[in-house]
Amino acid sequence: MALNTLDDVFLEALKDIYNAEKQLIKALPKMAKASSTPELKEGFKMHLEETKGQIARIERIFDLLNAPHKGKKCKAMEGLIEEGAEAMEQKGSPELIDAMLIAAARKVEHYEMATYGTLYELAEILGHDQVRTLIGDNLKEEVAADAKLGACARDIVYPASQSLAAR
Amino acid sequence: MALNTLDDVFLEALKDIYNAEKQLIKALPKMAKASSTPELKEGFKMHLEETKGQIARIERIFDLLNAPHKGKKCKAMEGLIEEGAEAMEQKGSPELIDAMLIAAARKVEHYEMATYGTLYELAEILGHDQVRTLIGDNLKEEVAADAKLGACARDIVYPASQSLAAR
Repeated sequence: MALNTLDDVFLEALKDIYNAEKQLIKALPKMAKASSTPELKEGFKMHLEETKGQIARIERIFDLLNAPHKGKKCKAMEGLIEEGAEAMEQKGSPELIDAMLIAAARKVEHYEMATYGTLYELAEILGHDQVRTLIGDNLKEEVAADAKLGACARDIVYPASQSLAAR
Repeated sequence: MALNTLDDVFLEALKDIYNAEKQLIKALPKMAKASSTPELKEGFKMHLEETKGQIARIERIFDLLNAPHKGKKCKAMEGLIEEGAEAMEQKGSPELIDAMLIAAARKVEHYEMATYGTLYELAEILGHDQVRTLIGDNLKEEVAADAKLGACARDIVYPASQSLAAR
């Protein structure tokens, strides 16, 4: 498809994140299962529910733009999820596997923050106020999820890993 | 390799970003060539030089930790770079291709920010002060590169794309 206007750039980025979020829906239950720290496990489960809501918002945006609910294979998310899978396959104590899972998950959050950040600015310049609000809601949730993962690492997983080394 | 301590987690993340930065060294000249906005082209070239310096810092960290200069294939960066390649292959006006390139490049910056962020926190908890400073330098450069890409989009590329639509 040839790009004719900035609306086309917006739509391409939207298709990308739509597919990315759908990939994530499949990966998050596996990450929840592979993690040991209860707060982390719970966090992955909660973010799965959030992600379903984010997909619903993206579908509302497609509707507002009269575009079909159609994604475009997001290769970056495929790679990010493979990194998560590698973390799950690592051998080692549960605390350290959790540290790897958090690192992988924060990369996913940053990927999404970058995409929603671009979409937010595009919606703004294109004057799509309703769309911008929906994108802003998704963006805020990703920022909060990333902060929560960071806090879980600093407050629980890293200290547990350190005391492991001291034993 | 089994993970025994948090140092191993640090080293795994370091190997990942070492490989990612090396992949980026090959991709950035192509992105510079594919872009049309002079400021963007110049920005990609400048970031190529910065990236070389970042790789040198990573190699210093390997030395400080008595570890070989050895990366681990970063699948996420492979996917991110493929997205950049897709942007280059898009048909459309140069301004819109540039908008796509900026979106792809900001995802790369966010990926790196996530990894350096994790490495910074790990270096802190592990008490590797010199390593933390080197990671902090790389992190600051990625944050600045992302901000510069954002400003280039808002101030130059998006307005040029908008006036294109109005013509």
